[in-house]
Amino acid sequence: MRVAILGVGTVGTEVANVLIKNSDLIVSRAGVSITPVVGVVRNLSKHKDSIIPLTDDIDSVINRDDIDVFIELMGGIDKPYEIISKILERKKAVVTANKALLAYYRNELEALAGDTAFGYEASVAGGIPIIKALREGLSANHIQKIMGIMNGTSNYILTNMMNSGVQFDEALKKAQELGYAEADPTFDIGGFDTAHKLLILASIAYCVHAKPEDILIEGISQISSEDIYFANEFEYAIKLLAIAKRGEGTLELRVHPAFISKDKMLANVNGVMNAVSVVGDAVGESLFYGAGAGGSATASAVISDLIDIAREIRNPMLGYKAPLESAPLKLLKPNQIRTKYYLRLKVADEVGVLAKITNLMSQNNLSIDSFLQKAKSKDEGCATLFFTTHTCLEADMLRVINSLENENFIKAKPFMIRIES
Amino acid sequence: MRVAILGVGTVGTEVANVLIKNSDLIVSRAGVSITPVVGVVRNLSKHKDSIIPLTDDIDSVINRDDIDVFIELMGGIDKPYEIISKILERKKAVVTANKALLAYYRNELEALAGDTAFGYEASVAGGIPIIKALREGLSANHIQKIMGIMNGTSNYILTNMMNSGVQFDEALKKAQELGYAEADPTFDIGGFDTAHKLLILASIAYCVHAKPEDILIEGISQISSEDIYFANEFEYAIKLLAIAKRGEGTLELRVHPAFISKDKMLANVNGVMNAVSVVGDAVGESLFYGAGAGGSATASAVISDLIDIAREIRNPMLGYKAPLESAPLKLLKPNQIRTKYYLRLKVADEVGVLAKITNLMSQNNLSIDSFLQKAKSKDEGCATLFFTTHTCLEADMLRVINSLENENFIKAKPFMIRIES
Ligand SMILES: NC(=O)c1ccc[n+]([C@@H]2O[C@H](COP(=O)([O-])OP(=O)(O)OC[C@H]3O[C@@H](n4cnc5c(N)ncnc54)[C@H](OP(=O)(O)O)[C@@H]3O)[C@@H](O)[C@H]2O)c1
Ligand SMILES: NC(=O)c1ccc[n+]([C@@H]2O[C@H](COP(=O)([O-])OP(=O)(O)OC[C@H]3O[C@@H](n4cnc5c(N)ncnc54)[C@H](OP(=O)(O)O)[C@@H]3O)[C@@H](O)[C@H]2O)c1
Repeated sequence: MRVAILGVGTVGTEVANVLIKNSDLIVSRAGVSITPVVGVVRNLSKHKDSIIPLTDDIDSVINRDDIDVFIELMGGIDKPYEIISKILERKKAVVTANKALLAYYRNELEALAGDTAFGYEASVAGGIPIIKALREGLSANHIQKIMGIMNGTSNYILTNMMNSGVQFDEALKKAQELGYAEADPTFDIGGFDTAHKLLILASIAYCVHAKPEDILIEGISQISSEDIYFANEFEYAIKLLAIAKRGEGTLELRVHPAFISKDKMLANVNGVMNAVSVVGDAVGESLFYGAGAGGSATASAVISDLIDIAREIRNPMLGYKAPLESAPLKLLKPNQIRTKYYLRLKVADEVGVLAKITNLMSQNNLSIDSFLQKAKSKDEGCATLFFTTHTCLEADMLRVINSLENENFIKAKPFMIRIES
Repeated sequence: MRVAILGVGTVGTEVANVLIKNSDLIVSRAGVSITPVVGVVRNLSKHKDSIIPLTDDIDSVINRDDIDVFIELMGGIDKPYEIISKILERKKAVVTANKALLAYYRNELEALAGDTAFGYEASVAGGIPIIKALREGLSANHIQKIMGIMNGTSNYILTNMMNSGVQFDEALKKAQELGYAEADPTFDIGGFDTAHKLLILASIAYCVHAKPEDILIEGISQISSEDIYFANEFEYAIKLLAIAKRGEGTLELRVHPAFISKDKMLANVNGVMNAVSVVGDAVGESLFYGAGAGGSATASAVISDLIDIAREIRNPMLGYKAPLESAPLKLLKPNQIRTKYYLRLKVADEVGVLAKITNLMSQNNLSIDSFLQKAKSKDEGCATLFFTTHTCLEADMLRVINSLENENFIKAKPFMIRIES
């Protein structure tokens, strides 16, 4: 099997390396040898010591008849969409790791692929075979819930904040120094990368075709060391979670930081590692843990797609339709979510403040589960109050926060984190 | 696709239930409907309210031409071996959850199957798709290590001992009351069930054809509350582990209780849950967690095999040869293992005892990593000493233990637990 690597950067280089280094193993597992015959880059002069032949002429490569599978590892959205469309129109197999592309165009591409193999195991959670698990390993199950930690940068920062008590800015700087965060980290810490991956998993599990703009996406930059203090006090970890949750004919999709009880497996996923928990109606909870990024781990997933194609696992990526729903699932609006909440308030240290707050809460159907007042506050005359609620409607919580913002006794913007279990 | 269920007990009943309850979903995922047309039991009178037609005449069923896949869920070794052999000789597909059978006869059965589908995802770690992960998801990797918690009974008992400080006997009794342990628990707590599963995983990852008698198998019944005390003191969990570890041309296969640092994911797998950690040369560590047993979780795995067969994933179970090794891997003898050790000694509280012990250790190449003497001992005149060692050879450790047993100052049989990381 002859393959072309379109984009020979971090991942593409490792795909070539592993294909060559593990070639004996791969031929015995695939039944045929898998040979990277050409790679495409923009700037040839950067790649003098490449171990595969390179070109900067992508059009000539995608029209070659002697290539069986094209591996897209360039990144971007519109350019790879155009390239992959051309290849699939020629009925040639494609493998990609491009989650941004798939978050927007997976349906168009799957439709175009038809019977042609189109693999994207590497696009979600790097080396973890979560797409295969959803499509095949758990195929007997209605998927009731997916909950994942799928961004190594954010998880590294949050782990560091929890373990060393550093503030967000310092943890981010450390991550940047270690190469775990980009110079512009917005895509990772803002939750957008996680959202792309969630949309891919949700389309497999639920056949929903939402785009990033349709769902709740919140990042981690507002987490303070006071939230960390509370988390440690109440045996929680704080994680940036991707959540898909199925109700009666409804579906919630959301990305946000969340408290999660320390006795849960997900709470113990630390540093740059990723994990995805899946609840199925027959199997109960399963969890899949591993390296979410990095050239070599991502290459492992890319090559598993190649081996599946070589073994004529006939189009593992298609021929798989989502469950026939009696009616299509309705995507819930963000304010229709029901969950538990953590609320941090900085208030004037005056008589009657607590009564006003608890009144407002109960008028809006919020029932308090736990309450903590921090012993000392740095700012004189102020106290920090922490609340957790029982399960309630997001719309009610937002109304409470809105009302509080107009009160004089509130001394900083109220801050809320959802609590998941 | 028409299937017969040979054995309609805990698992077989749930296979029928899930096939019927989730039939819409399964037809959309498999591309065809999957219908349980008949079930076989020994004693028909026990099964008056079966939701599928039953018979006690197994021979008539296995010779039916209108059945596409036979699901063996009877248990035992020789009888199912005979039955499955007959079915495979007729070129009919088989799915089984029978780990005991596979621990002894997997090679004979795979050879007999040839191109006929033969699935056994359910035989290891119940609902966790670990066989698929090894064969397909991680197919680009040399597997360097497998480490698994694969017996719910043992893990429930150990978790309970760690959390509540109860002794082994009490924890076992509780497990029996809750239905987590059999009246005769030897198979589970002696490590034999875990060993069967390890052999299945090892034959997939390494193509080795060992039998249970060829490998080190130790159970958990010797663990005392003093070991638990030490584990808590030094931030370890104690788990019954199955370990496959590849060296230079060598392979270790072993089942035994082990200390494992609490910051490892495996250490956080509690109660009846199972998990398998796999280290691959490209992907690094991955971990797969879920329900290891129970009718419904096991049925999830059985049905995923059925759906794979229906989707004409052409014989996912075969067509997959182990890596071509330049020379076959050599299975290490138990005393050739190298690891770290914990050693618990009850000694006479006399001058010079510690010096004698540490001398003996250093003469046998054991170097001490940590040492703890328990403040108070129940038995007068005795002290309990705890040692951990740096990595050393099992043969050296066994020699030390042997010599100690002959010393007068040793007041109870020395007890050792391996430490894994
Ligand atoms: N890095 C990870 O850990 C990871 C994990 C999972 C998924 N992914 C996904 O994998 C893809 C690749 O990521 P990466 O980290 O390997 O990116 P990268 O290091 O930036 O490499 C991109 C490669 O594509 C080439 N390229 C870009 N645009 C091109 C164009 N228009 N024509 C020809 N060649 C072009 C670049 O050429 P030059 O070398 O000449 O610039 C470079 O070789 C992305 O979609 C990413 O989201 C990455
Ligand atoms: N239970 C689990 O959680 C689990 C998990 C993973 C794998 N497994 C494996 O799955 C298999 C089945 O386990 P199970 O727990 O479902 O066992 P089970 O509850 O004991 O059921 C066994 C069934 O097989 C029938 N049977 C036994 N011998 C037979 C024979 N010679 N001819 C016809 N029918 C026969 C029995 O009939 P009667 O009902 O008339 O006695 C019963 O219906 C075993 O290999 C086990 O190791 C079980």
